Amino acid sequence: MTKDSVRKKVKVHFEPDNVDIVVETGANLLEAAIDAGVRLTASCGGAGTCGTCKVVIKAGEVETHRTAKLSDEEYEQDVRQACQSKVLTDLTVYVPVESRLEKAVVTRESKGTAETVATGWRFRPLLSKYFVELPLPTIQDNASDLSRLLRGLKQRHKLSNMTVDFDVVKKLPKTLRDSNWKVTATTVVTAVKPRAADRRRPRLTNIEPGDARGKHYSLAFDIGTTTVCGQLLDLNHGQVVAEGIDYNAQISYGQDVISRIAYCQKGGCPKLQRAVVGTINGIIRQLLDESGVGLQDIGHLAIAGNTTMIQILLGLDPKYIRLAPYTPAATFIPPVKANTMGIEVGEHVYLFTFPLVASYVGGDINAGIVGAGVHQRKTLTYYIDIGTNGEIVVGNSDWLVAAACSAGPAFEGGGIKHGMVATTGAIEDFDINPSNLEPTIGAIGGEKPKGICGSGLINILAGLLEVGVVAQNGKFHTDLPTKRVRPGKGGHEYVIAWASETQIDKDIVITEADIDNLIRAKAAMYAGCQTLVNSVGMTCRADLEQVIIAGAFGSHLNIEKGITIGLFPDIPRDRFTFIGNGSLLGARLTSFSTDLLDDARMVARMTTNFELSENADFMKNYVAALFLPHTNADEFPSVKEKLEKLQKNKVTQRTTV
Amino acid sequence: MTKDSVRKKVKVHFEPDNVDIVVETGANLLEAAIDAGVRLTASCGGAGTCGTCKVVIKAGEVETHRTAKLSDEEYEQDVRQACQSKVLTDLTVYVPVESRLEKAVVTRESKGTAETVATGWRFRPLLSKYFVELPLPTIQDNASDLSRLLRGLKQRHKLSNMTVDFDVVKKLPKTLRDSNWKVTATTVVTAVKPRAADRRRPRLTNIEPGDARGKHYSLAFDIGTTTVCGQLLDLNHGQVVAEGIDYNAQISYGQDVISRIAYCQKGGCPKLQRAVVGTINGIIRQLLDESGVGLQDIGHLAIAGNTTMIQILLGLDPKYIRLAPYTPAATFIPPVKANTMGIEVGEHVYLFTFPLVASYVGGDINAGIVGAGVHQRKTLTYYIDIGTNGEIVVGNSDWLVAAACSAGPAFEGGGIKHGMVATTGAIEDFDINPSNLEPTIGAIGGEKPKGICGSGLINILAGLLEVGVVAQNGKFHTDLPTKRVRPGKGGHEYVIAWASETQIDKDIVITEADIDNLIRAKAAMYAGCQTLVNSVGMTCRADLEQVIIAGAFGSHLNIEKGITIGLFPDIPRDRFTFIGNGSLLGARLTSFSTDLLDDARMVARMTTNFELSENADFMKNYVAALFLPHTNADEFPSVKEKLEKLQKNKVTQRTTV
Repeated sequence: MTKDSVRKKVKVHFEPDNVDIVVETGANLLEAAIDAGVRLTASCGGAGTCGTCKVVIKAGEVETHRTAKLSDEEYEQDVRQACQSKVLTDLTVYVPVESRLEKAVVTRESKGTAETVATGWRFRPLLSKYFVELPLPTIQDNASDLSRLLRGLKQRHKLSNMTVDFDVVKKLPKTLRDSNWKVTATTVVTAVKPRAADRRRPRLTNIEPGDARGKHYSLAFDIGTTTVCGQLLDLNHGQVVAEGIDYNAQISYGQDVISRIAYCQKGGCPKLQRAVVGTINGIIRQLLDESGVGLQDIGHLAIAGNTTMIQILLGLDPKYIRLAPYTPAATFIPPVKANTMGIEVGEHVYLFTFPLVASYVGGDINAGIVGAGVHQRKTLTYYIDIGTNGEIVVGNSDWLVAAACSAGPAFEGGGIKHGMVATTGAIEDFDINPSNLEPTIGAIGGEKPKGICGSGLINILAGLLEVGVVAQNGKFHTDLPTKRVRPGKGGHEYVIAWASETQIDKDIVITEADIDNLIRAKAAMYAGCQTLVNSVGMTCRADLEQVIIAGAFGSHLNIEKGITIGLFPDIPRDRFTFIGNGSLLGARLTSFSTDLLDDARMVARMTTNFELSENADFMKNYVAALFLPHTNADEFPSVKEKLEKLQKNKVTQRTTV
Repeated sequence: MTKDSVRKKVKVHFEPDNVDIVVETGANLLEAAIDAGVRLTASCGGAGTCGTCKVVIKAGEVETHRTAKLSDEEYEQDVRQACQSKVLTDLTVYVPVESRLEKAVVTRESKGTAETVATGWRFRPLLSKYFVELPLPTIQDNASDLSRLLRGLKQRHKLSNMTVDFDVVKKLPKTLRDSNWKVTATTVVTAVKPRAADRRRPRLTNIEPGDARGKHYSLAFDIGTTTVCGQLLDLNHGQVVAEGIDYNAQISYGQDVISRIAYCQKGGCPKLQRAVVGTINGIIRQLLDESGVGLQDIGHLAIAGNTTMIQILLGLDPKYIRLAPYTPAATFIPPVKANTMGIEVGEHVYLFTFPLVASYVGGDINAGIVGAGVHQRKTLTYYIDIGTNGEIVVGNSDWLVAAACSAGPAFEGGGIKHGMVATTGAIEDFDINPSNLEPTIGAIGGEKPKGICGSGLINILAGLLEVGVVAQNGKFHTDLPTKRVRPGKGGHEYVIAWASETQIDKDIVITEADIDNLIRAKAAMYAGCQTLVNSVGMTCRADLEQVIIAGAFGSHLNIEKGITIGLFPDIPRDRFTFIGNGSLLGARLTSFSTDLLDDARMVARMTTNFELSENADFMKNYVAALFLPHTNADEFPSVKEKLEKLQKNKVTQRTTV
């Protein structure tokens, strides 16, 4: 088929959303879907390599570049990869359930305790409101409006040495007179005291008529590669008023930070910026709707996120993050007016982004360390954020070392045949009967399953290992008395749910390729931890006193199973705690306390970054960890013992049977 | 004539400019002229009361509201006030020379001496450039780009505690790499140390590739109600590279600040802002053209101006300046990015406006005090800026009191029948033969005269007084042997130049009404000075040690004549100095020295403002000064003596003749 030389307007209709978009012939179908607001998964960012954006062409014609991701059967059934298809005529396109991103991400509660949340800070928000009644100007005292206000703030509230935003001067004369010289001033502290002797300079950012102290809110956000979480904070009461979560709309342009950076390198940075700003704006609207709080009553916005997410959000080209030696633009980014980035808040609102450590140890990790109070205790802590990058930190109040492990997206369901994020229909619970090797599964929301999320994958792999369906090298035993282990494309697979039990009318399986991905991911994280701990002359088993697990699946992860596959070190289970979204926790607590703001800056400075990608010890540790749980069984004595015991039981069982 | 119910497009052709503009029928002819770029005088801002915007309708029809400013003769010759005329058809309009504003304002040199210019300051500009060669990032040292830059600036130039503009972060990664890590950083100091213990925080505002220290310029401007003056400063050599001056384009909307504020109250503030920004941009282009300096090499902009001019420039509604108790929006206005105001400079350029004292004692006066070093000396100084407002300051290094005298625009030629600003064709020199009462006149540029400027008016009035043509009450003696004194409309007048000797083919006269205006203007200034000096328990004659005269006509003013009419106090002539444009002097010197920046803030704080309009002593002093030179002859002993002597000579002469 040749290309049309003349471009025409055609209409693409998407089902089951029932939305239409008009595009020119030749348009990319994935882009058309994104523009139409249809939420498609596209893990690889449109490179054609992940096969997650499959759609069914029900009517009309496309020109498709066929890749190995499309089976003959699929091709005959008019299944196409949207990213590989050009629109030629009017189309009707059906988006199957497994290609859809659903908004109903389950929000998970943090289970932080006194040991894993920063303590000792005073409730003293970055944002403050001060009410003043000013004396009316007279001919004897006709100081300027601003002088009068500053004098009032000094006399009444001991505020001095302020920086004043020009926008405040602009609205001051009218506001003062309209409110009969009774006004509320908003100040924000963004800079941290560079020296103890220097005083903190509050910045006067807003002026409101009358006593507006009752309406005193701010926003805290975590911008993740996959999801964006926001909280509306009541700064009078130190409470979360509303909470919202949504997929980062950038996800349609690539699943991990590397594919996002690659997209930016092709000139896509403004598009990605608009995408994430759109997500943020959607969450803000949702928070306001839920709480009934007015947009103008929000006075501040604190955002934590990984370095790539923050740079894209701010329009700072992230390309050097990907190129050795991996330098970010800045570790401390000056506060900017949020509306200049397209974020729909009042023009007085500054966007504070968390200080970061390095290109791959971002403000999200720093926020997590501060929020969890790792820097406050002598306890030697291993902090692990199980996301796409797999960032880890080891240390205590004296020192902190950090690294990104490039674990890959396996624990978020990426690169896994039936992997998916932890949303409704994702299998997360898994148990297997050691006798007949039949599974018992549980999916989020109690629905029929449509895929497997990260915690489910860990449970499945551990379960299969324990009953001997999978060997310690990650390969299936093929001589077992079960139909569930069967040959598949490129290796064996285990059927977790038969097609009839699923939403997708296909068998949900875990393949040897999936297991290989998982082993590589867990090996990277374990080797990373080992490398950091060893670098300070310690060992994981002897010295780690606490493990704090942050991340999307956080509290639903089974620690025992994580240790079984060698993801976590084999130390007493009571040393583990989940804190859920550590990044959001840090953003919130810092919004509540300038003490923690100072800490955030200090922690960013004191944390030493390890570039594992070029570290010889890491490579050695990584190769040694490519086994279940590890090539060195002495690293995992309890797992060794358990597996030996289970093996013995099974032999006994089989003998008994 | 009735209005067209349907508006049509018609063309207005202006001569002698030969420019056309298409407007709708019903459009105001003055507005049409302004929009067409034709520079018309319109002192009253289109109220119809000044009669300075007269034009001749050579073809076509207008609908005019006829005022008393138009004589029968003029009306018959198709002369109309542009501001009172609506366009009805295609027009050809001739703008006579006396209605034109000409750009060729004569630039006058400041004659500042060691006694009247600030001394002792170190050459240390607000704006600095620093060149650094940074070590290339490596995997062992992959600090962020910004951290690397700040580290380099600290090591190499001992710069620390910096504030960083977000725009710098945005361009940093590319600039560093494009220039092989050799860059020039620009910093600006805008905030002044609030306490001695606090360190000054430089703000990093720009980053350029390579060594850009050689191109290091800033701009200093004085924004006057009538004229705008700008200088391009070379900050490497502390020199003025180029100088430009133009009428403030706001002049077509009203001659004094009150008429400008009135225009703003009718919603015209954005229009006035655009007008003055247009003037500034024109001067900047002229400065760059003349000097060959590149736009991007300008790093800073310091502007001094009266409070109304500055508030309009910044888009701060000036209405409360006009309403009692006359409060300005702010005395210290935070620096803003100049391009946000429409000023065509690089986006890194901040606009610094001089701190001001009060609504009618603005940053221009503060700049003059600082530039002249009044605050540095023990000498009791009277600083006088003879503009429309007539601001005065009395004091020394210990104390400063200031006031605006509402002198009116007479000294700038406003409200005077043939008054004009000090441009080519303006009569400034005047001598009169006591025998035959014939004058000798000199006009600026050696041209035929077309009007009289402020210094000319003073010389004329003093001359007429000395020879007894005008009595001490400001009325003409009508029994003199000269045709030059003759009855006119509303009182007598003296013919300074016959129609045939002029450019305007009309007799140039000074009327009793003009003299009345001049007397009121000089009385306001003298009474203001007296009130300030008396308020501290001193008297002008006994205690003033120095008089510094600033203002547009500055150095061309004849001191002796000024004393003769009672404008200046009768003290030894060697105590007087002209400094020309004091506001521009202060803006320039402050650009050269942070010492003077600190002084400017201190002077603004230490200056006490007197509101003369509601001061009983001032009213008493003012009434007493409504005489030539003064009702109390003992205030002006040398003038008294001179007039008595001249009177005696005249009697002798007449006797002799």
